[in-house]
Amino acid sequence: MTNSKAASFPIGKLSIMLAVLQDHEWRKDVEDELTAKGFRFTIGRVGAMDIIKVVTAIETAAKNNKIIDSESYREIHAVYHAIIEAIQSIGRGVVQFGDILRTVGLTFSIVRGKMDGALEHSGEWIAVCVYGTIGAPKKGFEHEAIGFGFNHI
Amino acid sequence: MTNSKAASFPIGKLSIMLAVLQDHEWRKDVEDELTAKGFRFTIGRVGAMDIIKVVTAIETAAKNNKIIDSESYREIHAVYHAIIEAIQSIGRGVVQFGDILRTVGLTFSIVRGKMDGALEHSGEWIAVCVYGTIGAPKKGFEHEAIGFGFNHI
Amino acid sequence: MTNSKAASFPIGKLSIMLAVLQDHEWRKDVEDELTAKGFRFTIGRVGAMDIIKVVTAIETAAKNNKIIDSESYREIHAVYHAIIEAIQSIGRGVVQFGDILRTVGLTFSIVRGKMDGALEHSGEWIAVCVYGTIGAPKKGFEHEAIGFGFNHI
Amino acid sequence: MTNSKAASFPIGKLSIMLAVLQDHEWRKDVEDELTAKGFRFTIGRVGAMDIIKVVTAIETAAKNNKIIDSESYREIHAVYHAIIEAIQSIGRGVVQFGDILRTVGLTFSIVRGKMDGALEHSGEWIAVCVYGTIGAPKKGFEHEAIGFGFNHI
Amino acid sequence: MTNSKAASFPIGKLSIMLAVLQDHEWRKDVEDELTAKGFRFTIGRVGAMDIIKVVTAIETAAKNNKIIDSESYREIHAVYHAIIEAIQSIGRGVVQFGDILRTVGLTFSIVRGKMDGALEHSGEWIAVCVYGTIGAPKKGFEHEAIGFGFNHI
Amino acid sequence: MTNSKAASFPIGKLSIMLAVLQDHEWRKDVEDELTAKGFRFTIGRVGAMDIIKVVTAIETAAKNNKIIDSESYREIHAVYHAIIEAIQSIGRGVVQFGDILRTVGLTFSIVRGKMDGALEHSGEWIAVCVYGTIGAPKKGFEHEAIGFGFNHI
Repeated sequence: MTNSKAASFPIGKLSIMLAVLQDHEWRKDVEDELTAKGFRFTIGRVGAMDIIKVVTAIETAAKNNKIIDSESYREIHAVYHAIIEAIQSIGRGVVQFGDILRTVGLTFSIVRGKMDGALEHSGEWIAVCVYGTIGAPKKGFEHEAIGFGFNHI
Repeated sequence: MTNSKAASFPIGKLSIMLAVLQDHEWRKDVEDELTAKGFRFTIGRVGAMDIIKVVTAIETAAKNNKIIDSESYREIHAVYHAIIEAIQSIGRGVVQFGDILRTVGLTFSIVRGKMDGALEHSGEWIAVCVYGTIGAPKKGFEHEAIGFGFNHI
Repeated sequence: MTNSKAASFPIGKLSIMLAVLQDHEWRKDVEDELTAKGFRFTIGRVGAMDIIKVVTAIETAAKNNKIIDSESYREIHAVYHAIIEAIQSIGRGVVQFGDILRTVGLTFSIVRGKMDGALEHSGEWIAVCVYGTIGAPKKGFEHEAIGFGFNHI
Repeated sequence: MTNSKAASFPIGKLSIMLAVLQDHEWRKDVEDELTAKGFRFTIGRVGAMDIIKVVTAIETAAKNNKIIDSESYREIHAVYHAIIEAIQSIGRGVVQFGDILRTVGLTFSIVRGKMDGALEHSGEWIAVCVYGTIGAPKKGFEHEAIGFGFNHI
Repeated sequence: MTNSKAASFPIGKLSIMLAVLQDHEWRKDVEDELTAKGFRFTIGRVGAMDIIKVVTAIETAAKNNKIIDSESYREIHAVYHAIIEAIQSIGRGVVQFGDILRTVGLTFSIVRGKMDGALEHSGEWIAVCVYGTIGAPKKGFEHEAIGFGFNHI
Repeated sequence: MTNSKAASFPIGKLSIMLAVLQDHEWRKDVEDELTAKGFRFTIGRVGAMDIIKVVTAIETAAKNNKIIDSESYREIHAVYHAIIEAIQSIGRGVVQFGDILRTVGLTFSIVRGKMDGALEHSGEWIAVCVYGTIGAPKKGFEHEAIGFGFNHI
């Protein structure tokens, strides 16, 4: 038996869908589900040859869209480590883009909320997902990649 | 404007969807698209506390389901590196499960085919995606993670 | 000008002192300061050739001494990542003991509390420090090492 | 029973104390002990967003303060690897500061001498300890970290 | 019993010899053997403080000397990963030169062909070997290193 | 112009040749050169699925063949780090064999002596080279690899 809605999706899967679906019509279902669950979320894009721009773009989006409180070091620390995890994940152990001639074109999502089915006092978590292409800075000479980071907040 | 089918999905995205959607009804669309494109694909599950079981499970599934030719070292070399990339990606730089008390419960997908919109002579590629939970071997003390590897074959 | 008490020590430095001083009389000052600040803390020892024992020993000490709530996945997630950071730090990039013939004899400290001089809403943090020897399992064929991990909780 | 002096401290612990204590009055005891044992040592500070400045600052301090012979490649090789270990240790597996938006403000110590209780022919060793803060280049948005490297010389 | 020719050398060993022998007379034997086997190969030199120049130099040499087809992303992907493996291998886990004050002076070889004694359908492989010195940018303050990468193509 | 003897080979190149040439007649030239220079050296073989056996085999060979003094922790520390470098180099960043299903069949060389053309007071160095195959434990499903470590002693 299958589900026809995104209602069964836990927080991480929702963030993956958000980053991956882009303009596909299924994304509306995902956004409706995020809203229904009271999650805070945002999507953005960043193309870069160095990590610093990717980290900054995601961190800035988290602050500007009120996913985190930009005055709280705790929340910045939480999202920062989730971003680093996502980038290490997309780089598969080698956190370097421009250094080794790779450029990335990424769509990222940030989702904050409770884990589905979690214990009462489990509090909030933050998921960061990045999806896009990695490769030489030349059309057709790149391939897809996905990265994911997760932290308590 | 949005698409209502998975037709616009490139090979990596199809493998991600396949691993993530599980029993959701959208998966049928994804499988239809994979079939329409003439891609070879399979899905499997593996729960383990050590990497060797995860690597073996994915490699065996690739052979048994004829995604790769089990007599060709080239193809085994290609899928092996894609699996290692996916595992490094899920472990975010640290390829260790049992060693540091983490257990994984993963759904994996393997997809083989051409890249969408690729140049005529670009040949075939293989994508491996693993999605599931990573954490302590105790219900509710784990969180989601996703890993992805990609290679020419 | 110098201080004669540990009053000026921030949380991380207190955890470092706690792990390093062992039976030295200065440790009393450090413990007095920890108590005065209302911090929760504990010390333990572990000798092992594999990481799993070190992680388990520290995690168990954190739970048994009520540094963290053993029913909260958030708190376990926080201390777990601090422990992994401390171990990666002591292994200097290579998280492997028994695998490469190294054995460790470690004193560890766990401290939980607010950061000194932190903003009002900065909440609690957890510091894990491990200090001891790493080397061949043979007296005199080992040298000192220190590791430190830090996380919001 | 406890000790009231730093006399029982081995070389690594002395270097840790030297980097951590800074202006605390206990530091005099540590320096007295280092002098009594005939160890060569120095302390310095460095604030930077890139590794190259940290490595250079520590290497230069080692040369200028005659901890090592700046004309001996052997000694430079020994201190260089101890510095890299200390930096890998503070970065916990990720040797990158500026690349991922982290800035460091570090006090470092370098100590050279024999290991306490070592065998007659065990020769000299070099310990490098760095202690300070790592984080965003913004007051209060950083936390403590410690790194340690050790090598024969 | 010993061989007097390079006839028994497999593809990887030939690439190692090619990079290491430089102007030694044995190199002629190695080149004769490469030619006899119908392998494509080239040699080059690169001195640099940053990885990007090393990667570019090797990739460009592979294209310009027709070791790979510069219009095929598959072949570029294959040689790129072999180059990264060789560089990770020479850096022994730390892919950074300029970042940590190291400069390299390298001779590199690229060899493409079938594996000796391989199964009929095992196709072509590419080996990249880099040999040279790594160290401070100062004569006599550096030492030798070798790196090797291998991939199916 | 070319050389017809191994006389121009520095210590690292001699160790590489020693590990790679095996039963080839050129090896006699290499051994003659090592002897002429007064270097201590040995060769050995090890086949294993776990690192611990490889490290032990090389360390034991270094002790048994008097390349190092087995009672000196300094010398053991030096050779140990050279071995780890060689293994990280062969594993290209991932120090794991059995963990990820790879088995190795290696010939290793250990050479100890002065660097050619080095400054008068540059002392002795140790080079460890490992060459062989890495892959699945199945004939023809493996490929060549080389690793190299170097340290002052």
